Amino acid sequence: MSNPFFKNHGPLNISDVLKLLEIKIDVTNKNQQVKDIKDLISANNTDITFFHSKRYRDVAKNTKALFCITTETLGKELPRNCTPLIVENVLVSVSKLTAKFYPDSVEDNFDITVLDIIKTKFKENVNHGKNVLIGENVSIGSNCCIGHNSIIEKNVSIGNNCSIGSNTIIRNTFIKNGVRILDNCVIGKHGFGFFPAKNKNLRYPHIGIVIIEDNCEIGCGSTIDRGSMSNTVIGKNTFLDNQIHIAHNVKIGENTILAGQVGIAGSSVIGNNVRIGGQAGISGHLKIGNNVEIGGGSGVIKDIPNNTKVMGYPARNIREFIRNSK
Amino acid sequence: MSNPFFKNHGPLNISDVLKLLEIKIDVTNKNQQVKDIKDLISANNTDITFFHSKRYRDVAKNTKALFCITTETLGKELPRNCTPLIVENVLVSVSKLTAKFYPDSVEDNFDITVLDIIKTKFKENVNHGKNVLIGENVSIGSNCCIGHNSIIEKNVSIGNNCSIGSNTIIRNTFIKNGVRILDNCVIGKHGFGFFPAKNKNLRYPHIGIVIIEDNCEIGCGSTIDRGSMSNTVIGKNTFLDNQIHIAHNVKIGENTILAGQVGIAGSSVIGNNVRIGGQAGISGHLKIGNNVEIGGGSGVIKDIPNNTKVMGYPARNIREFIRNSK
Amino acid sequence: MSNPFFKNHGPLNISDVLKLLEIKIDVTNKNQQVKDIKDLISANNTDITFFHSKRYRDVAKNTKALFCITTETLGKELPRNCTPLIVENVLVSVSKLTAKFYPDSVEDNFDITVLDIIKTKFKENVNHGKNVLIGENVSIGSNCCIGHNSIIEKNVSIGNNCSIGSNTIIRNTFIKNGVRILDNCVIGKHGFGFFPAKNKNLRYPHIGIVIIEDNCEIGCGSTIDRGSMSNTVIGKNTFLDNQIHIAHNVKIGENTILAGQVGIAGSSVIGNNVRIGGQAGISGHLKIGNNVEIGGGSGVIKDIPNNTKVMGYPARNIREFIRNSK
Repeated sequence: MSNPFFKNHGPLNISDVLKLLEIKIDVTNKNQQVKDIKDLISANNTDITFFHSKRYRDVAKNTKALFCITTETLGKELPRNCTPLIVENVLVSVSKLTAKFYPDSVEDNFDITVLDIIKTKFKENVNHGKNVLIGENVSIGSNCCIGHNSIIEKNVSIGNNCSIGSNTIIRNTFIKNGVRILDNCVIGKHGFGFFPAKNKNLRYPHIGIVIIEDNCEIGCGSTIDRGSMSNTVIGKNTFLDNQIHIAHNVKIGENTILAGQVGIAGSSVIGNNVRIGGQAGISGHLKIGNNVEIGGGSGVIKDIPNNTKVMGYPARNIREFIRNSK
Repeated sequence: MSNPFFKNHGPLNISDVLKLLEIKIDVTNKNQQVKDIKDLISANNTDITFFHSKRYRDVAKNTKALFCITTETLGKELPRNCTPLIVENVLVSVSKLTAKFYPDSVEDNFDITVLDIIKTKFKENVNHGKNVLIGENVSIGSNCCIGHNSIIEKNVSIGNNCSIGSNTIIRNTFIKNGVRILDNCVIGKHGFGFFPAKNKNLRYPHIGIVIIEDNCEIGCGSTIDRGSMSNTVIGKNTFLDNQIHIAHNVKIGENTILAGQVGIAGSSVIGNNVRIGGQAGISGHLKIGNNVEIGGGSGVIKDIPNNTKVMGYPARNIREFIRNSK
Repeated sequence: MSNPFFKNHGPLNISDVLKLLEIKIDVTNKNQQVKDIKDLISANNTDITFFHSKRYRDVAKNTKALFCITTETLGKELPRNCTPLIVENVLVSVSKLTAKFYPDSVEDNFDITVLDIIKTKFKENVNHGKNVLIGENVSIGSNCCIGHNSIIEKNVSIGNNCSIGSNTIIRNTFIKNGVRILDNCVIGKHGFGFFPAKNKNLRYPHIGIVIIEDNCEIGCGSTIDRGSMSNTVIGKNTFLDNQIHIAHNVKIGENTILAGQVGIAGSSVIGNNVRIGGQAGISGHLKIGNNVEIGGGSGVIKDIPNNTKVMGYPARNIREFIRNSK
């Protein structure tokens, strides 16, 4: 699937890619073109990919990509169809190249293209409040309402029967049907991702979007960041209470419930039918199974298997927590 | 007291109630009318009530209600004046019937009735910012100010000498005198209450309001949800710092102080002269006494008696916490 | 340095000061004038200062102030040039006198002086959204953008190459170059500071400002309160994620990273190159050294030395935390 919202400024000439990444190798065809940058699985034989951790060894062995930004050691695992591009810091190089393909995905200044809804085609069909602003590349289904002062910036698709509150800001987001987003939310801004550097951190591009499936509710004052290389997803019929923070690349399953002030750090995956109590926090890059219950205030710092109840900081089996708390 | 803000669409005919709740019993008078749905204590002899937990056995024995939605076992505890209506899930039935009496209390779409304050009678008397919106059934006392872009939706009463910040949204709320509500707050939206159901959760009505007593301060970015069957109350001279979340039905006493990012889950009751440190969380349905001190970051999961200092997660007596932390 | 933003209504006649504070002593010259109220170090020989804790004994001994609000015991430590003014509660008296010098620093009602940016000199030079409001005493450098519905109230200086998001409110703040403040923030309101008093707490003045140094990023929905007697400072190239709360007088160093939902209580000092995980909280009046790492969800309740990794609640050395968590 090509990126639905960020314009790909490719193809790029491989010699320009090598120059940008300061790589000095001979390539058979200097005018070879690469169309896109994608992860190891999605990349096909016109794309460039990246491989930065041995965790991804198995998928790396089967990548269809033409080129792969990687390290000397990892590069040896690549298949013959894929030429390794050896760099010092894989993610910094990926960031630079992604910014070249998708220059619009780095900065998140306010959307200057918006118009007051009364000057758009949505004037009649959308039940709208005062001072509602609509950007370019926005679609809105039937029977929707959007509250006062809300800003639907560019690259937003809203399904049927959705209700958006007041003072809410949405961008780069795909909202399905029957979704309710309450007041004062910010959905779809870039994640908190950058390479720390003295005096001036290097922000990396976020070409992922936010996807909110059917019948979700997002509480007041919540923030959901869009993904960097993949998407941030809120599954069907999942309800978020007020003041929740969902970081970039997080995937939440279906029929899951998050109580007030919960925070989920980047790239964690939450299953179906999960219940998370108020103020609980989940560290980044974790996998929380299906039918899990996490007590309010818990701090989850490792994976949780299916059908488990946990509580505490660090979160542990609830029976153990109760025993230790006596 | 009749509900001050949500319009009661009753009385209902008891035969219609029975049909809605799918109950097949004979009643003496099929045209008997019921005027309202209320809790066991407030209901009088023209109302219907509900009884779903043995915790309420004592008040159930003395209810004046004409009918009571309950279970087979609990129904036996009711007095002779009150006919039990036996259902499978008491709260789901209560929810359905409440939505019938108060259809306006289920959905919380933005208030389409608002007008710019300069088109209302408040234009002269209220010291207002730009783009202030005022809904129906709003009253504002003397010497008040309301900041830019704030939205006072329908059903709000504001006393004298109050200051409302900018970008703040208020609905279904009774604000007494000398209250200060700072910027970016959302006060009076429905609570995070619903019956989980696969594919489409069932939201329940919230017919309670928010009451903010004299001289309170509510910090920036805070959210206070209105009650479901009872009210959410912030007592006199109680101060809330920034980014606080108060869930539905919570009652906070007088002269109490909540530091930044505190969260209080649904239906908990907090006493007078209580001090709650930053980021502390209090689970639902708890009773925190008077003169209690709760350390910052604590997670309170059981009742706390008067005059106690607690800290930790789970919160325990502060001396015990300090001993265990060594 | 004189206060850059709050107008000093001094000098005051010492006899008026004595009357305000209800102090009955003989002073040599009843018409003696005092120009300002400052801390023990900053005060010079035309100012009044205050001394309320023996922690400040060393600096008190060398103060240049003409008068000092203090207690009977502490007053004995003052040098001969400084006349002690003995009161019952030093901070309450300081608060009263500060409010006399700086009457504009107590209340934080919305800024009524703002104009739509299109009616100001910034119309051409600032890349602005719709409904942007600008107050008095505001300066904005070159190549800046300000999003929709944002309010730059009085007393704000913005450097070059800054990006302010939408729905954000800023006042009493000095923003250097290359700073990005995202959507829905509130920067520069008074801190959560008051003297608890039955029925009506006494708010104290906040004459400090917020200073945000070069290249910082402030995430969505964050709140940064201005200082009371000193300033709140965010150091160069420090990045804050979403929904962060920084209380009054906090100083954060350079190249520091705060993940989502972190809270820092009043007057704490955070070093350079510090990393604070999501939802961590830091109590008031603490000193966190340089190169410190604080795990997500931690509750820090004592000072942390340089080059330390801590985690837990209360936060302790990370090796100890892991050992205890098994």
